[in-house]
Amino acid sequence: MKISWSAYDTSATNFRPLVVIELAKDIKDETKEWLTQKIVEKKKNGGAQLLVKPLVEDGEKIEGNHNIYLVGASPLRLLLGAETVGLVKECNDNTMRAFTYTTRKAFKDFAEDNHDFLTMAECQYVIKHELENLRAKDENMIPGYPQAKLYPGKSIIRRLITNGILIQIFPLHDTEELKKLKHTWCGQVKVRYQPLDEIRCYFGETIAVYFAFLEYFTLALVPMAVIGIPYYFFDWEDYDKYVMLAAFNLLWSTIILEVWKRCCAVMAYRWGTLLMKRQFEEPRPGFHGVLGINPVTGREEPVYSSFKRQLRIYLVSLPFVCLCLYLSLHIMMIYFNLEHQAYLYHEENQSELSSLMLYVPSIIYAVVIEILNRIYRYAAEFLTSWENHRLESSHQNHLVLKVLVFNFLNCFASLFYIAFVLFDMKLLRQSLATLLITSQILNQFVEAVLPYWLQKRRTKSVKKKVKALDIDTDLSLLEQVNLEKGMDTYLGTFDDYLELFLQFGYVSLFSCVYPLAAVFAVLNNITEIYSDALKMCSIFKRPFSEPTANIGVWQLAFQTMTVISVVTNCVLIGMSPQVNALFPDSKMELILIVVLAEHLIIAMKFLMAFVIPDKPRDIQIKLARLEFESLEALKQQTSLVRWPVRFDSTCSE
Amino acid sequence: MKISWSAYDTSATNFRPLVVIELAKDIKDETKEWLTQKIVEKKKNGGAQLLVKPLVEDGEKIEGNHNIYLVGASPLRLLLGAETVGLVKECNDNTMRAFTYTTRKAFKDFAEDNHDFLTMAECQYVIKHELENLRAKDENMIPGYPQAKLYPGKSIIRRLITNGILIQIFPLHDTEELKKLKHTWCGQVKVRYQPLDEIRCYFGETIAVYFAFLEYFTLALVPMAVIGIPYYFFDWEDYDKYVMLAAFNLLWSTIILEVWKRCCAVMAYRWGTLLMKRQFEEPRPGFHGVLGINPVTGREEPVYSSFKRQLRIYLVSLPFVCLCLYLSLHIMMIYFNLEHQAYLYHEENQSELSSLMLYVPSIIYAVVIEILNRIYRYAAEFLTSWENHRLESSHQNHLVLKVLVFNFLNCFASLFYIAFVLFDMKLLRQSLATLLITSQILNQFVEAVLPYWLQKRRTKSVKKKVKALDIDTDLSLLEQVNLEKGMDTYLGTFDDYLELFLQFGYVSLFSCVYPLAAVFAVLNNITEIYSDALKMCSIFKRPFSEPTANIGVWQLAFQTMTVISVVTNCVLIGMSPQVNALFPDSKMELILIVVLAEHLIIAMKFLMAFVIPDKPRDIQIKLARLEFESLEALKQQTSLVRWPVRFDSTCSE
Repeated sequence: MKISWSAYDTSATNFRPLVVIELAKDIKDETKEWLTQKIVEKKKNGGAQLLVKPLVEDGEKIEGNHNIYLVGASPLRLLLGAETVGLVKECNDNTMRAFTYTTRKAFKDFAEDNHDFLTMAECQYVIKHELENLRAKDENMIPGYPQAKLYPGKSIIRRLITNGILIQIFPLHDTEELKKLKHTWCGQVKVRYQPLDEIRCYFGETIAVYFAFLEYFTLALVPMAVIGIPYYFFDWEDYDKYVMLAAFNLLWSTIILEVWKRCCAVMAYRWGTLLMKRQFEEPRPGFHGVLGINPVTGREEPVYSSFKRQLRIYLVSLPFVCLCLYLSLHIMMIYFNLEHQAYLYHEENQSELSSLMLYVPSIIYAVVIEILNRIYRYAAEFLTSWENHRLESSHQNHLVLKVLVFNFLNCFASLFYIAFVLFDMKLLRQSLATLLITSQILNQFVEAVLPYWLQKRRTKSVKKKVKALDIDTDLSLLEQVNLEKGMDTYLGTFDDYLELFLQFGYVSLFSCVYPLAAVFAVLNNITEIYSDALKMCSIFKRPFSEPTANIGVWQLAFQTMTVISVVTNCVLIGMSPQVNALFPDSKMELILIVVLAEHLIIAMKFLMAFVIPDKPRDIQIKLARLEFESLEALKQQTSLVRWPVRFDSTCSE
Repeated sequence: MKISWSAYDTSATNFRPLVVIELAKDIKDETKEWLTQKIVEKKKNGGAQLLVKPLVEDGEKIEGNHNIYLVGASPLRLLLGAETVGLVKECNDNTMRAFTYTTRKAFKDFAEDNHDFLTMAECQYVIKHELENLRAKDENMIPGYPQAKLYPGKSIIRRLITNGILIQIFPLHDTEELKKLKHTWCGQVKVRYQPLDEIRCYFGETIAVYFAFLEYFTLALVPMAVIGIPYYFFDWEDYDKYVMLAAFNLLWSTIILEVWKRCCAVMAYRWGTLLMKRQFEEPRPGFHGVLGINPVTGREEPVYSSFKRQLRIYLVSLPFVCLCLYLSLHIMMIYFNLEHQAYLYHEENQSELSSLMLYVPSIIYAVVIEILNRIYRYAAEFLTSWENHRLESSHQNHLVLKVLVFNFLNCFASLFYIAFVLFDMKLLRQSLATLLITSQILNQFVEAVLPYWLQKRRTKSVKKKVKALDIDTDLSLLEQVNLEKGMDTYLGTFDDYLELFLQFGYVSLFSCVYPLAAVFAVLNNITEIYSDALKMCSIFKRPFSEPTANIGVWQLAFQTMTVISVVTNCVLIGMSPQVNALFPDSKMELILIVVLAEHLIIAMKFLMAFVIPDKPRDIQIKLARLEFESLEALKQQTSLVRWPVRFDSTCSE
């Protein structure tokens, strides 16, 4: 049964484990053999041509799962894989180019014996890509599992995952590197920029871009916070000056979002993802349908009618979301009602019990909202899965949209109600402060402190267990794999961005009422950077690196928020008693002026977004140069190869 | 001196003249010789490898310019040129693919002896491209013209044009084809679709897209017109129903613009331009600067600091445009003042003279506006040239923006003033009708009838002249070239689109006041199609075909107009006495409701633009398939060519 290691590679000592595959405990032997065979098989025979090694040899008697495999690859294989996935690296002349094995000598730091040319994260990305592209040829099922159907071109790994044969597949941490990174990133209590390049090397671009955005956003909030502080200390109620503040905030928030695009482009260029060609997207693992012909690829694969999906979206998901929004609003109204009654009760009785009763509605509301939020999140995930999107990206977009709308309403509806129905600015300021501060504290606790403590406990128990074994395998690796496979999986940047998005809402929507929001946001984000960093380094399994060039749909979400905030701020200013005092006779004139100002500001925002180029000039030039070079190369090819041979010989005779 | 024709091609009888080059009358002989030599020279020696022939041989004694050359090319040369410019043609399997000479057999209607595989317009486009890409190698001046400097890589034709040595270069009409096209297009007075595919074959995509848009737009206006008619006949003053009409118009105008994108994508796919790769753009002919290194191409060419250009734009052009706008508004105010005084004078005197005096201000205003318009147009062109844009496209965009803003104000400022300052709906309706109808009649006259009559006269005189010669050259060709070189040059679709844009403004901005506008627009557009077609077929030189996939910046302009029209229509409805009567007590409530409705409609517009995909599903699939194929081909290349050879030999030994 045991496949000897030497069959794959003559230099087993050179083997560097990169990725861990955990198979089900009860997996059949024939399946195991078939899969490992597939992984090591030559590329031309339909294999992945990687190296694979069981974590514990069959002979050893160790507790726990024996079906864990380590996957690696020879350095040459990794270089060729890097070409396949289209990695972009820096050349000796400081330009970024897609790596190809033929031109490898032109790349910076490349040497045949330099195995650090590709970072570990890049190697793991290559291996993940190769494993996912391990496709069925003529097998029509997974050996040993007749119910796990295969068809030509079906990704084997994805089928194994959907059938529960493969439990998980994750990249290994590099304990040395991680230690170093952790030290520079969150080891010192010292104000400094994050080591973004190192983060990107270790965790990949998606996570690095998130931390870059978090840092950028925090820095961008500082001017708002600085301007907000004197408002707090000196003239709390002076709306005239708030107008200035609000105007500044509105323009500033537009500018920072536009400038972010440019900063992000510079960064993505440096990291090579700006130039990376989009890979052809596979159907997502959960996608199902009748076997048919994909019109794009011409391959046989599950096909699901787009019309049916539209029906599900517009007839089920959309009404459901609307219903939930309505329910949430309804609950909010009940809350305001309860609070009002509690207030009346307190007015009447004036006892200690009644003053305690004042807090009851808020507590009930907070709890109910939290429960509703969680139920809704599950429902949204279920519905989006049920909509059966073919691509992961469109699945994600629909999920983000659903969750975003609901969270927006949940967080801000009560504030909108207080501001525009009750017209109670004092209550608005108070609620805003309470909501902002409590949500920040709660988040920090739930997100970082609690998991960190849990992880510490888990580490101890694993260490104890492994030590108790006392055998002669590479103990540190065994310990590491066992530890990491139990760690939580990082579920992507969604929740982190959502948190930032809501915070941005608190800061910008009612900025002219509560200028201190920016201060709290800055303070929160500074600790957020540390706690998120800690989370990434200590709590989660290492995530696979994912190339990305921007923050994607979030850019749009943030920009939409700035447009909404123009409206709310204009209305708030128009409603302020100070501004109203300026127009004692004609409320109409006031409203018209406010509406006009709002339109002008929004027009200016769109104009600014249009005028400010998305990429800085030097990046534009670099991209244009690459395009020009490829066009020239094409022309050269045509004129040098074809012209003298074919054209001249037929034409000039 | 005379270069014998047979030196270029053995089969002079096969020579089909495609493009005419007219050189200056006093051009030096050495320059003529050098240029013709360049044109026929082999590609590998830096020539264009085309065929060239003087229109009249040197020996013949004919009046007029003897320096006119006809340019053609062998069929094979044209095919290879088509590959160079990246033409996209239909394959035998009904997909669209970039034409390559190697894969020529796969294309529909291709046969070695079928010289109609490329349309004449395509051949002319290829020749234009090849001529423009005739570049200096080591010459540092045009022979015979030391002041006409050259540097390696400089386009020779562009240098000749800027120095006035080359007067013009234009493609020849195909009289047979033109006759046929003219007959089906505008020969019959019969309601039918335009022969867009034939128009595209003859005139190229840019012009065909304009006519397609004109037709689409006219059809799209029909529902508005149909709904508008009963409003005119039954209840002229009933604003309640105008609300319905306005709401319909607002949604409809958004929908038609979104649907147009889809229709245009279908058309552009069929014509191959959707898939055509953008060529690397050369500096425009008028661009000048200090000789430096272009950072993109690395070539020596004139370089002009982008900072200086920005300064010129923001410190000179922008203030100038603002000044002109202010001036235009000022003149408008004077006009209203004059009109008011004329009215008062008439009230006082009540004589015939005084009633005539009523028309004087309008006439003065119309004349002044027209003069101002023309001056402004020259100024805008001068300023945009002076801004010294490197690319034709950016030059065009800046020119369009300048002219658009000014024309918008000129046309609509008086209407805005009447509507939102004077609040005179009756006058608004009247002015709108007058402006719309007179501008349409004037346009049709100036654009088509007048030039048509002039061209008729010119044709007669040329025919007379040529007949008087009585020599044995190919008379019909001589006549044709002489006739066509004197024809007006078609200056692009700018003015035609501008006209449509302003018409769209008349229809949509105040649609709830004057529903009949759409009816007039439809009627005008039907005659416009015929007059524009006549113009293209009979008045102008044939223009070079220019591939394009959409209406470019005009899509944005039309969409902006729909947003503005939401605002104006909402305000008009809010101001109507009927709606005001619904809110007798609270004007504030009314305004708030109107503002809310406006925001909702605009939000819905953006949502609709977001939700409706820009390309129909089948086009998306076709594009995705092509992308997939090219990715697959790349993979095949990697795995088939490289893997077995390089990888296996180094790895598995």
